[in-house]
Amino acid sequence: MMTGTEYKQSLSDGRATYFEGERVDDLPGHDLLGPAVQDCAEGYDWMLEHAVDGHSPLAGVPTSPEELRAMVDLVHQSGMMSHVTYTSIMTLATTAGRVKDEAPQYVELMHAFIDDAQRRDVRITQCITDAKGDRSRPPGHQEDPDSYVRVVGRQSDGVVIRGAKLHITGASLGHELMTIPTKAMKAGEEDYAIAAMVPVNAPGVRIINTTYAPRHADTRDFPVSARHNYPEGFVIFDDVFVPNERIFLNGEVSQASVFAHSLGLWERLGGLSSMADGADLLVGLAQLVAEANGLAGESHIKEKISEMIIHATVVRACLEACLVHAKAGPFGAVFPDELYTNAGKYTGAANYGLMVRHLHDIAGGAVVTAPSIADLENTDVGPLARKYMRGSTADGEYRTRLFHAIRDLTADTYGGWRAVTNIQAGGGLYAQRIVTRRHYDLARAKEMALEATGLAGGGHH
Amino acid sequence: MMTGTEYKQSLSDGRATYFEGERVDDLPGHDLLGPAVQDCAEGYDWMLEHAVDGHSPLAGVPTSPEELRAMVDLVHQSGMMSHVTYTSIMTLATTAGRVKDEAPQYVELMHAFIDDAQRRDVRITQCITDAKGDRSRPPGHQEDPDSYVRVVGRQSDGVVIRGAKLHITGASLGHELMTIPTKAMKAGEEDYAIAAMVPVNAPGVRIINTTYAPRHADTRDFPVSARHNYPEGFVIFDDVFVPNERIFLNGEVSQASVFAHSLGLWERLGGLSSMADGADLLVGLAQLVAEANGLAGESHIKEKISEMIIHATVVRACLEACLVHAKAGPFGAVFPDELYTNAGKYTGAANYGLMVRHLHDIAGGAVVTAPSIADLENTDVGPLARKYMRGSTADGEYRTRLFHAIRDLTADTYGGWRAVTNIQAGGGLYAQRIVTRRHYDLARAKEMALEATGLAGGGHH
Amino acid sequence: MMTGTEYKQSLSDGRATYFEGERVDDLPGHDLLGPAVQDCAEGYDWMLEHAVDGHSPLAGVPTSPEELRAMVDLVHQSGMMSHVTYTSIMTLATTAGRVKDEAPQYVELMHAFIDDAQRRDVRITQCITDAKGDRSRPPGHQEDPDSYVRVVGRQSDGVVIRGAKLHITGASLGHELMTIPTKAMKAGEEDYAIAAMVPVNAPGVRIINTTYAPRHADTRDFPVSARHNYPEGFVIFDDVFVPNERIFLNGEVSQASVFAHSLGLWERLGGLSSMADGADLLVGLAQLVAEANGLAGESHIKEKISEMIIHATVVRACLEACLVHAKAGPFGAVFPDELYTNAGKYTGAANYGLMVRHLHDIAGGAVVTAPSIADLENTDVGPLARKYMRGSTADGEYRTRLFHAIRDLTADTYGGWRAVTNIQAGGGLYAQRIVTRRHYDLARAKEMALEATGLAGGGHH
Amino acid sequence: MMTGTEYKQSLSDGRATYFEGERVDDLPGHDLLGPAVQDCAEGYDWMLEHAVDGHSPLAGVPTSPEELRAMVDLVHQSGMMSHVTYTSIMTLATTAGRVKDEAPQYVELMHAFIDDAQRRDVRITQCITDAKGDRSRPPGHQEDPDSYVRVVGRQSDGVVIRGAKLHITGASLGHELMTIPTKAMKAGEEDYAIAAMVPVNAPGVRIINTTYAPRHADTRDFPVSARHNYPEGFVIFDDVFVPNERIFLNGEVSQASVFAHSLGLWERLGGLSSMADGADLLVGLAQLVAEANGLAGESHIKEKISEMIIHATVVRACLEACLVHAKAGPFGAVFPDELYTNAGKYTGAANYGLMVRHLHDIAGGAVVTAPSIADLENTDVGPLARKYMRGSTADGEYRTRLFHAIRDLTADTYGGWRAVTNIQAGGGLYAQRIVTRRHYDLARAKEMALEATGLAGGGHH
Repeated sequence: MMTGTEYKQSLSDGRATYFEGERVDDLPGHDLLGPAVQDCAEGYDWMLEHAVDGHSPLAGVPTSPEELRAMVDLVHQSGMMSHVTYTSIMTLATTAGRVKDEAPQYVELMHAFIDDAQRRDVRITQCITDAKGDRSRPPGHQEDPDSYVRVVGRQSDGVVIRGAKLHITGASLGHELMTIPTKAMKAGEEDYAIAAMVPVNAPGVRIINTTYAPRHADTRDFPVSARHNYPEGFVIFDDVFVPNERIFLNGEVSQASVFAHSLGLWERLGGLSSMADGADLLVGLAQLVAEANGLAGESHIKEKISEMIIHATVVRACLEACLVHAKAGPFGAVFPDELYTNAGKYTGAANYGLMVRHLHDIAGGAVVTAPSIADLENTDVGPLARKYMRGSTADGEYRTRLFHAIRDLTADTYGGWRAVTNIQAGGGLYAQRIVTRRHYDLARAKEMALEATGLAGGGHH
Repeated sequence: MMTGTEYKQSLSDGRATYFEGERVDDLPGHDLLGPAVQDCAEGYDWMLEHAVDGHSPLAGVPTSPEELRAMVDLVHQSGMMSHVTYTSIMTLATTAGRVKDEAPQYVELMHAFIDDAQRRDVRITQCITDAKGDRSRPPGHQEDPDSYVRVVGRQSDGVVIRGAKLHITGASLGHELMTIPTKAMKAGEEDYAIAAMVPVNAPGVRIINTTYAPRHADTRDFPVSARHNYPEGFVIFDDVFVPNERIFLNGEVSQASVFAHSLGLWERLGGLSSMADGADLLVGLAQLVAEANGLAGESHIKEKISEMIIHATVVRACLEACLVHAKAGPFGAVFPDELYTNAGKYTGAANYGLMVRHLHDIAGGAVVTAPSIADLENTDVGPLARKYMRGSTADGEYRTRLFHAIRDLTADTYGGWRAVTNIQAGGGLYAQRIVTRRHYDLARAKEMALEATGLAGGGHH
Repeated sequence: MMTGTEYKQSLSDGRATYFEGERVDDLPGHDLLGPAVQDCAEGYDWMLEHAVDGHSPLAGVPTSPEELRAMVDLVHQSGMMSHVTYTSIMTLATTAGRVKDEAPQYVELMHAFIDDAQRRDVRITQCITDAKGDRSRPPGHQEDPDSYVRVVGRQSDGVVIRGAKLHITGASLGHELMTIPTKAMKAGEEDYAIAAMVPVNAPGVRIINTTYAPRHADTRDFPVSARHNYPEGFVIFDDVFVPNERIFLNGEVSQASVFAHSLGLWERLGGLSSMADGADLLVGLAQLVAEANGLAGESHIKEKISEMIIHATVVRACLEACLVHAKAGPFGAVFPDELYTNAGKYTGAANYGLMVRHLHDIAGGAVVTAPSIADLENTDVGPLARKYMRGSTADGEYRTRLFHAIRDLTADTYGGWRAVTNIQAGGGLYAQRIVTRRHYDLARAKEMALEATGLAGGGHH
Repeated sequence: MMTGTEYKQSLSDGRATYFEGERVDDLPGHDLLGPAVQDCAEGYDWMLEHAVDGHSPLAGVPTSPEELRAMVDLVHQSGMMSHVTYTSIMTLATTAGRVKDEAPQYVELMHAFIDDAQRRDVRITQCITDAKGDRSRPPGHQEDPDSYVRVVGRQSDGVVIRGAKLHITGASLGHELMTIPTKAMKAGEEDYAIAAMVPVNAPGVRIINTTYAPRHADTRDFPVSARHNYPEGFVIFDDVFVPNERIFLNGEVSQASVFAHSLGLWERLGGLSSMADGADLLVGLAQLVAEANGLAGESHIKEKISEMIIHATVVRACLEACLVHAKAGPFGAVFPDELYTNAGKYTGAANYGLMVRHLHDIAGGAVVTAPSIADLENTDVGPLARKYMRGSTADGEYRTRLFHAIRDLTADTYGGWRAVTNIQAGGGLYAQRIVTRRHYDLARAKEMALEATGLAGGGHH
């Protein structure tokens, strides 16, 4: 296992990473990206403290619903980079079970990589979403053939890939880029049916970072995002060589979608789990601010909070149901139930805006107009600001900080990132509709309808 | 155990039951109520066929989540009168565990009644909703003091009660009326804190029936409601004597709400379970009619069905979660989790209208304008009606019958009953909001919010 | 102008009309259809009373927004058969203006028919929706070529048509069937591009009726539908001859959709206008029943009614906007604004279920379980039923009747008809989305977006 | 009329204004507040260019619906400071008409102020929302009596006021603070029934500013908010003297709410008007990004945009209806219809989250992860970023800029300000529900319901 300090050193490996037009050579020391590195380093130290027999508590792959549930909780506490790493590992484990008949040659490579990666204690990010160019056209019919990552050269010892992967959370902070097809491929699209594990510092890899880290001089006004923020990577593969042992799919178009489906499932589980907690958090904020405003007893406020509670509970019910009905693949690794995971993720994302609307409605305009902490400290106006920010049972500073937190989480740069990624993580709402539909037992529903209506077996059809 | 025939005979016990202005002396032979009696009789015979060691498969009380789940499925298949009976039994079992400290004198009576009732194999209906008069006033401050059922006479061997209970499904078809307070009572309302088991034929009981049974001469156009319909009873207690051994609460105002909460939980479980299946049924109908119309491949139709599927799945997830988290009371009887049961029941009821809207939108106007079966049989226009009712893969009669079923279920008398009772069973939406809120861990949500925003333990409050 | 009595006599013209498997020879005397005839007859007498210079107040065609608004109000009061007649006339007037360049030969025939029909004071129904068969296929590619009404014979003096038209409100009660294509037609579908005015008693016309008229012996429990109900006609053209002067389109496929679009606009105006009033009616019922229950002051009840009020107001705002922006065609006849009419109709239909849900939630279960009027009159239980049906300020009979009305309007056969036709009148929700989109100025919205984002005219595209 | 340059000079009047803990002495030169000053100055120059007979085009008060409509359009184009000024003027004009019977002594002062302010061409902001303290208590029962602005001293020539007003857009950039009661007052709250016009530089006034102006070094990534942003003022009246001629209410508690209602109406008109345009803008962005992504022809994308279009149209219909039904007060000044204004503002605010959800769903994750303009200019990765940001018909820079604009408007600091103020401007959703309910003709709706159900005049009540 790595220490936080070793992790920081590991980033000085020649990786080509950029931020707002400049190459970044010292990630730990960077003004806006450095705090994320530090957070990841602390995650390493946290894992060390929680090591079991010298192994990371995240090592191994759960083989029962109970283990899965424990892992979900653990991953949730262990920070973003552990989360994405775990999602990658589980995606590989699930994929291995699903491709074993059609593409058996990759199964051992995948399992070997999982063992090696857990032994090296590295962080792995999932590179799935391609640039896509004109989305009305398939990969093979784009004006620019590089719109989807593809093989542009083949050698006896490996392949050369070209293309870009977007929205890769923490790409610059990890060690490995798990690069997989974003969708199903068809005959003729063999070059696009490529899955590979690429080191972040491989020659030809370039990453452009964006971040929702706060820009204010005084980050005390950003109580949530100042503590935890992670850059998004725009990962470019500018003719990158991948050796054979790191290739997990290479032209088998029929299996291309398995990676995306497997990752989608785990991403949506992550999304569902995080939305279940996130919904409780919004309920908690709504109740706190209602109390601070002296409005917690108002009937229409209680109605809104009750509606938020019902939403939070329904999302959590889906999480419960998908864990209870987790299924094991052929190699024993369990994965959550597709139906409940997708329906839950959809519901959480679709209703997120209503949760935020209620919170804003309950909190009031001070969400975006509360004075800064520095204002509270100004000798001239600070005492007056504290006096007038005072609420029911809350002192002026507490109430001000509460508004800052609500703004930070729901009405500022980080809030925007949350709103968009709630929808987009694991694919937009349409993707989740399709997957839910695919896994719903429509034949049984039709049979029920025929029974109920007296048309079953009637030869009327 | 009783046979269906014995059951029919048991109804000739002098009960005073009315329908549209007339007293009904022969329930099994009544034009509109008779079919419901017959359905209940068939339920008895079904139970006999499924008997275990000479006992009804519904005998006993589940003591584990697994037993509860099995019972829920069984109850669901066994018909309405078994369903309401089971709900009554479980309500008593749950209540016994909850009142044991404050009103221990009734616990043994309740358990004794359960044993006796299961031995006698009788049907029990739940009499909860009072007339209520002016709902802005409590029971003790009504203009008419009988607006809530109350004790109007006390004797050494029992009490005399007066009042009415509304919306009692199957009241005239059962043997016992489980009469319980509809809400919490306060000091001074002791006469209203009365729970009692009253035989349907007790002197002074009068029941006015209503029904959604179809009135058409030819009930073939009502494929669902013609097969299964149950009268609703307006039960009047016109000074009815109840002996002491049948009294389960008598003045202990602090315990009055326990009955309603316990019944509410089981009614909502019934509602949730039936809405989970009902939602699947609507999905099935939507898919069948889309196929019959040749529109199953249309994108906007698929979107609507996907939305229905997600709703059906979310409701079922709540059912799963409330069963998995079922808890045992002090006497071992399990009951479903309050939080998930209520949130699920609310969600199912609140979105039912959208489900129906999608179904009507997909099906088209023929839901209410399809010709009758008799029209199809008319030699003059029947062949033409069949010709023009033909759809994609469906012949004219099949498609006509499908429209009839959709109308019957969602756009006719029975459909209206379903729409209203989906909302009102277990109390209106507001009741479910309140209960969900009460059982949600708001303190934990607030703590999460304080943690996330950096305000935890900060002494700012 | 005709009198009510003359109208009744006019129906004895040999028309072939059927009900539940039987031919109906005496429409005015028919048990279930007769009351509708009577209602239409009274509409005639009402018109006579409101005649202006011996002409029906509905004669003529409005040529200004103000006249249109007055006409909308008048039509609304004058009964269903006047309503559908007026919609037919206005559809013809609008169509005449729209086809004048491409199919000028029909313009004079249409105007002549309008004059003649208004002079003869006949009732005209709109026959638009075809049987459609497999809806995934166009008219020319159906297994049964008669799935859409088509010309099956051509003579020098006219054509012979075959096919069926569904959901024709009042078809059997009118004099003329305005038969028009249900959608756009393409080259090769000339036989389907047929619009014709067919007398109801033309040889070969057969009509199968359905009705939501109440079946109960005592219709006092159906206060709304017992007074006003209209049969729906399933109109079959079994090789019907149409003379040339009654043909308004004959093979000009490019103009086929003009009729449907014109009718759609007027149907949606009718739907919008009736939903605006209908929404106010639901608000009124919700407030009345809340008051009768003693709950009008409860905060959550007020919230629900406020939400209903906002919905009702928004629907009316769309009606206001579509009338204010009414436009005149080339011959002076005005028609409402397409954009606001369609958006309003959509909104009204889409939210109707929520309105009903709120009403049911506020009213309570007695919507479907209130005793009958006959029960109130029974000497044995009537006084008790009245006593216990008493609410806050309402006596038992008033409150019972209120529940009956709510059931009749929203939770019974007529309620189902309203729910389905709210969605389907003028085409399902999808149709209204498409038309709204077509009439929205998307180019302007894009220009606004380019301006706001600084991308306008930037040559970046 | 003032020029932009004169305006800038006018701000050097000794005003005490603060930003993030520091007093700001040079507003035009301030890093983050200066651009807003410049924008306001340009608004002055724009007005000069559009002057009519040497008067501002905003001078005067509209006296017909047509004039009102023209003014709404003009105000909309003329920038935020003109907008708030106009809202203040119209609030005064409306209030004058409403208080003329009960508090006639202020009418002339109000009219005189309007004339003088228009002559001096000053900018006026509306100070309404008080600190409020514990919102469950009225002004007179707060722990801190200054929680609502109040009179703390009375002299023959005026009064001294103390308190704070929150969320005052542009407070530091205007010349006058129109300070009015935030709600109805009761007997005993005379000191809180104070309305006054206070110069920004009056001794004792202190303003703390917040802003959503972008903090990035390179504001090109913020195409909307970098061009137009306005600080919000937290205005403190630390014992400020107001001379009698600037007092418009002083103790007449019965009239206190008139100011808030009048301002509320004009604020909601502003909100409604800006949401109508804002909704079109979101539609435009959705269509542009769908086209840029190559997805404009996808059925589910079109469905989402159609839903957005219907929402935008419905909001605009409410704007149309409130302008058409504008009414004139006793002095001739017209004001928009309360019912449609409030229902429209509510609908726009309530559905805003769904509009944004659809936009994010259509656009994709690049809303928050698109590279910066500086990245596009970097010689190392810029060409690659442009290559991979290329969409269907859009070049890489255009598409990148489009994502920036969507983020800026809906998923970043400014987006958060918009989301919150959409809800809160003119009071939260509850306030608009109440006002809509108050202005809806509930009596007429009840009468309609009684008529329809046959209960009218029946003596049943």
